[in-house]
Formats: sequence, C-alpha cells, structure tokens
Amino acid sequence: MLPEDELVERIRAVAGTGDGLVLGIGDDAAVLDGGFVVCCDMLVDGVHFVSSRQSLRQIGARAAAVNLSDLAAMGAQPVCLLAAFGLPPHRGDAGELAAGVASHGVPLAGGDLSRAAALTVSVTAVGRAQHPVLRSGGRAGDRLVVTGALGAQAAAGFTAEVTPRLREGRELAAIATAMIDLSDGIARDAGRLARASGCGARIDLERLPLAAGATLEQAAAGGEDYELLAALPDTERQPPFVTDVGELTGDGAVLLFDASGPRHDLAGWDHFR
Amino acid sequence: MLPEDELVERIRAVAGTGDGLVLGIGDDAAVLDGGFVVCCDMLVDGVHFVSSRQSLRQIGARAAAVNLSDLAAMGAQPVCLLAAFGLPPHRGDAGELAAGVASHGVPLAGGDLSRAAALTVSVTAVGRAQHPVLRSGGRAGDRLVVTGALGAQAAAGFTAEVTPRLREGRELAAIATAMIDLSDGIARDAGRLARASGCGARIDLERLPLAAGATLEQAAAGGEDYELLAALPDTERQPPFVTDVGELTGDGAVLLFDASGPRHDLAGWDHFR
Repeated sequence: MLPEDELVERIRAVAGTGDGLVLGIGDDAAVLDGGFVVCCDMLVDGVHFVSSRQSLRQIGARAAAVNLSDLAAMGAQPVCLLAAFGLPPHRGDAGELAAGVASHGVPLAGGDLSRAAALTVSVTAVGRAQHPVLRSGGRAGDRLVVTGALGAQAAAGFTAEVTPRLREGRELAAIATAMIDLSDGIARDAGRLARASGCGARIDLERLPLAAGATLEQAAAGGEDYELLAALPDTERQPPFVTDVGELTGDGAVLLFDASGPRHDLAGWDHFR
Repeated sequence: MLPEDELVERIRAVAGTGDGLVLGIGDDAAVLDGGFVVCCDMLVDGVHFVSSRQSLRQIGARAAAVNLSDLAAMGAQPVCLLAAFGLPPHRGDAGELAAGVASHGVPLAGGDLSRAAALTVSVTAVGRAQHPVLRSGGRAGDRLVVTGALGAQAAAGFTAEVTPRLREGRELAAIATAMIDLSDGIARDAGRLARASGCGARIDLERLPLAAGATLEQAAAGGEDYELLAALPDTERQPPFVTDVGELTGDGAVLLFDASGPRHDLAGWDHFR
C-alpha cells in the first residue's frame, strides 16, 4: 500500500459514524441523506501548483475543478462550492482566486480567509445525485472505460486547464457499476476501483488514449488527468466519448500489460510521498 | 469596514448563484435545499494556533469545534465533517489530527491529505436544520442574549478547549429571530448581526458575563469565544443558559456602552489583519 492510502486507513479507523451519513471515507465523495455528495481537496503552493507560473484565477479554477471532478465521478450535479484561502502577505488577491473558483458556473457559497506562509486553497464541493455511483459496485467481467485522453497534465508540467467531466459523469452514472476519477493515474486508480469492488483488473496499455505529446508512462502514471474511469457491464453499449481500456477480473491482481507482457514499473502518483 | 469584511464583499461579487443554493456567502453557513447547511474554516500553524503548545489531537478538535460552532449558530444538527490536512514533513500524524476532528461525536466523512510547509487544517461541517436561523432576521426591539461566559479564550492565550454550543443553538433556534457565533468578539459580531438585520445595536458592557480571569476588554473584543449571540423577541421567555446583554435598535449605529458612556475603543478581532 502506498503511504497516502495507509494514512487514509488510519484516519478511517477513528472517523466514526452517524445519522444522515450514508457513506463516509473511501470514495471520491461522501454520500449523505437525500443524495447529497460532498468532498474536499486542498492545493498548496509548491506542492500542487507553482504560483509564479500561474495566475491566481487559474489556481482558483484548478482547485474547484479537481473537486468538481470528484462530483463527476459520483455522477452528481454540482450544487455549490466553499473555499478556504490561506493568503501570504503579498500574494493575496482573494477576489481573483474566488473568480477562478466560481469560473465553472458553480456558485461559491461560502468559505474562510486566513493568513498563511504559502498560498493554500482548500475547496469543498457539494453535489447531488439520485443514485451516486461508488467505486465499489464493479463486477468481474465489467469493461473498464476512460473519458478523454490521458497524460496531458504530466506532458504539460501540470499547468494545463482541468475540465471536470460532469456531463460525462452523469451520463455514465446511468449505466456504470463503479466509477472513479483519475487524479493519480490509471495505474493507481484502477487498482483502487478494483479493490473497492473486490475484483482484480487488467488494463491494456496499448489501448490507452494518449494526449498529444504524452508518453505511455505519462498516460498511465503521470497523474492529475481528472478523466473518469468507469466499469460498465459487458452488455451495455459504450457511449462515444469513452475508450475501452480493459476489464475487471475475478482474481485480486491488478495487471497492466502491453504486447511484451505485464508492466510492473508503473505505480501511479502518490500526492503525499 | 475591517479588511476581512472588505475581502468578503469582493468575493461575494464574483460568487454566482445556482439551483439548490438557498443562501450563499454572508452568514455563518450556506443554506442548501432540504435544510442542509455547510461551512468551512481553515486553521494555520502560527496564525490560529501554535503547534508547539498544543497536541495534534487538540488542534484537530479545535478545527472541528470552530466549524460546529457555525452550525450551532444556524440552529443546525451536525451530519458530518470533512477535513483537509496540510502536513509538514516531521509533524505529520494525520491519525491524531483526525481523532481530534472526530472527538465531538460528529463523523469525519472524508477529506484530503497534502504536504505543506506549515501545519494547516481545513474543516468543512455539514448540518441540517428544519428552519436555519440567519443573521438577518433581527428586528428593532429584540433583546440580544449570549450563551456562556466571554473572554475565556483571550484570557487563556487561545488554547482553551472550544465547546460548540450545539444544543443551545437548537434550543434558541425555536425562538430566535437572528443568531451568530462570537468568533471575533461581541464588539464586532454584534455589529455584523445588526447590519445583516438592517438594525443598530446597543450592548451594555456591564452586563457581559465575564469568564474567570477575563477582563472586560477580553470579553468584548478578545475573540474566539465561540459562544452564541441571539436576537430574541422581547416577548419571549429567555432560556436559563443565556445572559441578556442589550438590544437591537432602529437606528444604524452599533453602540457599546458602560456607566461612563459609549466605548469606541473596542473593535473586535480581525483574523485577517
């Protein structure tokens, strides 16, 4: 297990339960009564972005997009965003950050302002889905499909604009048994979906839709693509915007292979390492 | 207007609106369809706490408490918390932080882990209220009452345990026309409630319930008490756990006075200054 997943397990052990909470830690978002889903992600200068290379508006837009991508992976419609900004003394235009957060057309409904040594943007997204799609519903034999093209962010130094796949997520939600967004690369996130579903997975690396300029390694393990990976029953017609890249299997192994055989060198990105 | 309130206005101008969002920026929490309320607050080492003086569990508990206090001010019942932790290399026990966040009996339902230069804890709280109490419902002639005693945090160097007034908030919600939590001191927060309600306010400083060891200045303007300030119709019987400290008035002025007359030197705490 990678360090981030180990920490998540330690947190899950103390998290507790309560009325009104349908599903807690372990999916792209928590699920509440009434089909509300909620998630949060924190972006820190020097870790997730370099503030000298991007405008505050771009940074705010990215912080919102990575959260909206989690809603997309639940098949949810966004309701609102909250944003907490930690602002260094001379890099503090909260209005520009907020304009970036609100740039996806989802209202910014509240938040917090603080001083901080490094620019920090923590966004919470709230959405709603009639039937939230979890990571855990996949079955052996389901096809694994991805939206868009992979490796664009790694190829562009992680400064490319992130477009959350909200429409695609809602369309896939009608047929998918399981879904996850590719924040850490398919090599890692396919394993998460498969484990949550009690399955293994086979990913055919030669089928991965490569973004312009991206290598196979970047597409498989570069991370931060924020495309969706969904498990679809073999009998479902696949929508035109996805690429079939593999399948869920009955054994526990997660296998990435190309013409030469399994590739054990592709581990995916650990944000925490 | 203080710098933090100015920034909030600039953010509100770009925040947008959308379906499912009943009330956005400007109250203790945003209000969504179905009576859900949601808020977030970020705590940064060296700004809101000093990590060498408190345990990680205490820091996590405080980050949760300040958010649960916002739910209390809406009269809401908590549903769950989310937490994003920014962890410096050698101060990174996320399990201890999470145990602190979950220590109030409200489940920790999700979140995020990141590296960061300074320990940063951003908590989001989600609650539910049949009729959320806003800051804006107060009327001239309403009595202003506070829970508990004031100035305890300032007197203790802001390391005292914070107990969110959730039960009191729900009880007050049945009779209050407006409510706010005292995060920045009554001198400042009474003005916020009054302005939101289109009123002025008179606060009798000699009636303020002083915490043990606290000065009048600490009780009025020290900040971080997280007690509740509610406006109650003059005709309502006040519950035993509150102290009557003043009233809403028909003019726009917010006046703090003692036996010697108005006190213009008490401004309240600006987290952002």
